[in-house]
Amino acid sequence: MSGARRRVVVVGAGFGGLETAKALADEPVDVVVIDKRNHHCFQPLLYQVATAALSPADIAWPIRGILRGQANATVLMAEVETIDPQARIVRAGGRAIPYDDLVLATGATHSYFGHPEWAQVAPGLKSIEDATALRRAILLAFERAELSDDPAERERLLTFAIVGGGPTGVELAGAIAEVARQALPREFRRIDPREARVVLLEAGPRLLPSFPENLARYAERALARMGVDVAVRTRVVDCRPGAVETVGADGEPGRVPAETIVWAAGVRASPAGRWVAAETDPAGRIRVGPDLSVGGRPEIFAIGDTAAATDDEGRPVPGIAPAAKQMGRYVASVVAARARGRAPPAPFAYRHHGDLATIGRRAAVVKLDRLELKGALGWWFWGFAHVYYLIGLRNRLIVAVQWLWNYLTYQRGARLIVGAAADDAARR
Amino acid sequence: MSGARRRVVVVGAGFGGLETAKALADEPVDVVVIDKRNHHCFQPLLYQVATAALSPADIAWPIRGILRGQANATVLMAEVETIDPQARIVRAGGRAIPYDDLVLATGATHSYFGHPEWAQVAPGLKSIEDATALRRAILLAFERAELSDDPAERERLLTFAIVGGGPTGVELAGAIAEVARQALPREFRRIDPREARVVLLEAGPRLLPSFPENLARYAERALARMGVDVAVRTRVVDCRPGAVETVGADGEPGRVPAETIVWAAGVRASPAGRWVAAETDPAGRIRVGPDLSVGGRPEIFAIGDTAAATDDEGRPVPGIAPAAKQMGRYVASVVAARARGRAPPAPFAYRHHGDLATIGRRAAVVKLDRLELKGALGWWFWGFAHVYYLIGLRNRLIVAVQWLWNYLTYQRGARLIVGAAADDAARR
Repeated sequence: MSGARRRVVVVGAGFGGLETAKALADEPVDVVVIDKRNHHCFQPLLYQVATAALSPADIAWPIRGILRGQANATVLMAEVETIDPQARIVRAGGRAIPYDDLVLATGATHSYFGHPEWAQVAPGLKSIEDATALRRAILLAFERAELSDDPAERERLLTFAIVGGGPTGVELAGAIAEVARQALPREFRRIDPREARVVLLEAGPRLLPSFPENLARYAERALARMGVDVAVRTRVVDCRPGAVETVGADGEPGRVPAETIVWAAGVRASPAGRWVAAETDPAGRIRVGPDLSVGGRPEIFAIGDTAAATDDEGRPVPGIAPAAKQMGRYVASVVAARARGRAPPAPFAYRHHGDLATIGRRAAVVKLDRLELKGALGWWFWGFAHVYYLIGLRNRLIVAVQWLWNYLTYQRGARLIVGAAADDAARR
Repeated sequence: MSGARRRVVVVGAGFGGLETAKALADEPVDVVVIDKRNHHCFQPLLYQVATAALSPADIAWPIRGILRGQANATVLMAEVETIDPQARIVRAGGRAIPYDDLVLATGATHSYFGHPEWAQVAPGLKSIEDATALRRAILLAFERAELSDDPAERERLLTFAIVGGGPTGVELAGAIAEVARQALPREFRRIDPREARVVLLEAGPRLLPSFPENLARYAERALARMGVDVAVRTRVVDCRPGAVETVGADGEPGRVPAETIVWAAGVRASPAGRWVAAETDPAGRIRVGPDLSVGGRPEIFAIGDTAAATDDEGRPVPGIAPAAKQMGRYVASVVAARARGRAPPAPFAYRHHGDLATIGRRAAVVKLDRLELKGALGWWFWGFAHVYYLIGLRNRLIVAVQWLWNYLTYQRGARLIVGAAADDAARR
């Protein structure tokens, strides 16, 4: 199969990997996409699955379905076991898959700052499974509170602590507050869901560090109006079942008794760097050259959250979907040039289009090149942008219908507690 | 709380229990609905979740959401531990819940005809969890076949054996054949999904015993046209990982090597009969009197799949949703008469409205009082009836949109493989 055509192996079908594969559709190469899951997940909307506004299938799409019409692409659902850079072979799912070019696009996982034991207590939000587990935890907390007669237990059950004040933390805090205050109140007889407490803990001096200060202040005010307790300059020093321990700016210790703790603080790259023995930064991301190749091996590339890349002014490229897609398109152009025997393209230059984060009903912050939006206008912009970027016509339509329905009724349709009782026992 | 108003405790929020609760909305009683899940599941469409046409939230709805506007109803998500019929107390979720009237509506589970060990190998389809586990198994079988180089392994992976030729078995067989022949073919590069084999095994002389013979024959022909191997008079004698062993009418042994085996054969009632030490039939259903009360205890009722009831001609009431709903409404009228000090209603009289089963695209069988439909007409009738009966306007709309989309594109949107790798290993 090699010989005649170059074979490009892409590991990971997130935003970056998928973009690489799609950009190679009309090039004289064979593309093999390897992913341990069968679906591409639209990660920016995971928090909406976790808070029962959308169903998993609304934000995830089978990788095969996306690439079905691309004749030069093969999809393998398999976990990578090892990579042999000398022999240029990826071992995955019991098979040896040779490559001419290799693109590592395996994304990021959570970083617990040296406390891996917190992972069990404070799960994060990176996959569909994470989202349905969190949905289950949130809904079960209200169910258990309804059954309880102990005021302290009820209070702990109805407290939701979110660690990390970036976009994910802000979006989750707002969405959980909306579930408690808008979707659930009339449904319980023994508790008042509006008494639920949502606490957003941020170690830095303000929320949303990637946004301009005035938009971050707006987000803080909007969250406060929705009843979220925002605590900045508050560092988490321990996560235990039922409580988060903190230290404030003045060194004062604090404690938030909370049954549900969510991690939205740090990420670290997947272990792709170790597979190819590459040099990585402290967050585990592979240091890449100007063409996103991995030091010394021009045929291996790293993109998206797997790569520590910088823009032309030396600033780090952020770990967001548009950046991963730009890197994916760029690497495809490098590989295509090789396949066609053309000169390589100019070095990768990241272009930052902006940042979006939604807070709640008719409240979002948007920072584009010259444009700043907040409030209702920002929210509508955010909604249209996300519906537009969802892959597949069907998902766009279904998501639009569901959002419209949720908006009009204050309801959340996907409020299902699923999963084995055994899982449940394990999580307690 | 008792004293002034009668308290009616309903255990189980399936079709029967929910109908009981809703029919008591305007009666001078307090209703407590206890269910171990937080959602009512529209079981007749579970096979559509299992075959990736619909998402779980399209056919399940939080019980609290359904009863939110009913001021006299309280919902508790809890598992029943014991019932004390002397003290008239249900123990559930660590609480003691007294009752004046008790309605047992806990449904049915699978019966493996004395072979409980088959349950692991050949799971059935009664809950949302069952449906997503089966969806995962079906989709993973294709993924693994794509990775395999061994022809025998591929064949086993691409064979789906369904045990039981009632409506569930027929619907599942047709839907799996459609996934293999219509949704997946263009997406794989190493296997041809159309080579998948779907085998429907039925011990009796024909499919769909509750339907007229001509409709059953039609179903058999329609399935054969879709490529399903229908084997009637074929009794399953063993289910092992990777194979079903059978015996034919002539005593000849047979063997179907199949990675995925689904049980759609027998059901048995939930253990509610044991809770109240009631007399049960061989399928575990509680024998009930003419007012659906449990022998000797006029304040305890059993309905739906939990009850062994007969119609006015002595024929058993079938285990279908309309029957459960009729029983639910009837028991509510008995309880309401007591609460209002009125004379009890006439004995329960079941009215059979008909039977529906869909086979595949534009193929269904419908038997109503005087009406028999098959083919495309039956299929449209089936579709409209199911959309109509789905609880909640949102679900109707979303399901209609998804079905229309699936119909127009031959696609299935909810093709997600989710669940921990550990589950997967356990299931193999």
